[in-house]
Amino acid sequence: MALKRIGQQTIALPLRPALCAGAAYVGKKEGEGPLGESFDFVTQDELYGQQSFEQAEKQLYLDAIRKAIEKAGMKESEIQFLLGGDLLNQIITASFSARELGIPFIGLYGACSTMSESLSLGAMLLDGEHASQVVCAASSHFCTAERQYRFPLEFGNQRTPTAQWTVTGAGATVLSLSPRKPPMARLSQVCMGRVVDLGVTDANNMGAAMAPAAADTLLSLFDDTHTTPADYDLIVTGDLGQVGHDLLMQLMREQRMPLPQDKYRDCGLMIYDDAQDTHAGGSGCGCSATVLNAHLLPRLESGELERIIFMSTGALMSLTSSQQGESIPGIAHAVVLESPKRKE
Amino acid sequence: MALKRIGQQTIALPLRPALCAGAAYVGKKEGEGPLGESFDFVTQDELYGQQSFEQAEKQLYLDAIRKAIEKAGMKESEIQFLLGGDLLNQIITASFSARELGIPFIGLYGACSTMSESLSLGAMLLDGEHASQVVCAASSHFCTAERQYRFPLEFGNQRTPTAQWTVTGAGATVLSLSPRKPPMARLSQVCMGRVVDLGVTDANNMGAAMAPAAADTLLSLFDDTHTTPADYDLIVTGDLGQVGHDLLMQLMREQRMPLPQDKYRDCGLMIYDDAQDTHAGGSGCGCSATVLNAHLLPRLESGELERIIFMSTGALMSLTSSQQGESIPGIAHAVVLESPKRKE
Repeated sequence: MALKRIGQQTIALPLRPALCAGAAYVGKKEGEGPLGESFDFVTQDELYGQQSFEQAEKQLYLDAIRKAIEKAGMKESEIQFLLGGDLLNQIITASFSARELGIPFIGLYGACSTMSESLSLGAMLLDGEHASQVVCAASSHFCTAERQYRFPLEFGNQRTPTAQWTVTGAGATVLSLSPRKPPMARLSQVCMGRVVDLGVTDANNMGAAMAPAAADTLLSLFDDTHTTPADYDLIVTGDLGQVGHDLLMQLMREQRMPLPQDKYRDCGLMIYDDAQDTHAGGSGCGCSATVLNAHLLPRLESGELERIIFMSTGALMSLTSSQQGESIPGIAHAVVLESPKRKE
Repeated sequence: MALKRIGQQTIALPLRPALCAGAAYVGKKEGEGPLGESFDFVTQDELYGQQSFEQAEKQLYLDAIRKAIEKAGMKESEIQFLLGGDLLNQIITASFSARELGIPFIGLYGACSTMSESLSLGAMLLDGEHASQVVCAASSHFCTAERQYRFPLEFGNQRTPTAQWTVTGAGATVLSLSPRKPPMARLSQVCMGRVVDLGVTDANNMGAAMAPAAADTLLSLFDDTHTTPADYDLIVTGDLGQVGHDLLMQLMREQRMPLPQDKYRDCGLMIYDDAQDTHAGGSGCGCSATVLNAHLLPRLESGELERIIFMSTGALMSLTSSQQGESIPGIAHAVVLESPKRKE
């Protein structure tokens, strides 16, 4: 049997599913950042007109999905699966959005790796011809995540230098085998990550906890595909922030596969600028989900970027595991995205 | 393009991935129930030799996975994906098990629908030739779930007549395109569920919250495949319990697709007997996961059952959503399992 697997962890998708359209709905702070102009919608109100922050996050999620489907020139009824998750306990953002959409729902939990987890799975389901259109989505909200994972907002705790700022935002991408419009990008390969844990226990230093998993997946992808960073225009991680970014650079140097400074970006460092005082940068499922859909996809569509690695990174701890003294395992799933303008 | 989709929600898997082996590790109460003899291991100690109930659940999960891989005649390194989830916040059971296994990990959250969600996705990845071996797993633990979703165990609250008893147990199934031994069953079709919510708000009546989703998925499957309950030897739901079981029977009668009494079973009613005082029956991801692997797969293997629908059912609420007054959305994913002895 001719498996599509190349090497240990990487899988080639011969049908190269199209990323037809993406949408990103974000909060005020994200709108004030360097990518502010590129988002589909910036809400000035953290409640987004809802009764609770959780409902606000759900509405951002739902609106991003509906916008992406509209931009793809499709109807909700044409989408066969919603693959999605978020950071909240029991992924209520995704589940309650799925309730309103009525699209068959595949609930995922990959912490902040959810956007690339959903793209990987969605693309494999298309490549296997089990669906012709799917939507992939992920979100986070500063106010829902902080009170769930750390402290009540009213407590106003001081943040450590390594702390990251949870992005308020939802991103959604429509994937299809038969796009209605010229695709923005195509997904040619996926590399599903292993869970890696080097023993970090500080819940305010997620970047350090996730960087080893990012290195593990990148090294597997390069090894499996016989490529190096030179074969890509950009390598983008999800939300390692400054600490994780620097640690990943160091780990890759140690493994003799250095990431050139001009080829490596982290969504957590792209979404805010230094003046916004977010300490080590952005984090949350919504970080890589909104940067992909608002910023990276258009650059692939235009041909400015021809081939990139997009790899969201997740920290898989819970309050309970942290309180029980467990360290923080990380995971990273990578997808290779290609511009439709790329010459083979 | 010849999609494998039949009808609105059902997908045929032409390669009919093999369920090679299953394993189920359970707690004392489950071991004392009617299926007690069929489990691979019954722990008499709820802590399973660990320091916390969460660690105990993780160890049951890990041991069930390792046992299933061993029974399939395979090595861990031959398994390409672990598709798994559980009921705990941030699915720490599955994530921390994946950390020890080192198998690329696809984290799922489908509440108690996780076993059939993981089988559906795993089988599609095999059918698409994106992997040749995967392991699917789900678990729950009475002591971790009760304190997370309801009350501290020490509180000793009185349980309502509609309440169900969370199963302590983990189930794992190895799926393969090229089984080493004669397969126990083959997976021929999947039907991915929509999120359905008829407005139930009582967190002690999960069966009623999930039954409408179960009816929705069953009706879609019958409609898509032009089959009726008469075409199956058994239709098995995950953990509707007595209340949900009766409600599903009623909903199906109303839709003129009645489930004959002798063809419909619920894992939540199979795992305990009346004398065990569990009120409406068993629940939790581990309920359908252990009943499938310990009881249903051997009956398919022997040919006693030739073709069944296995459909785990999930309630997608969280503590936060319940406290904010939200109702409880349900979901159900169905798979069609066939005996290797079935004549085509």
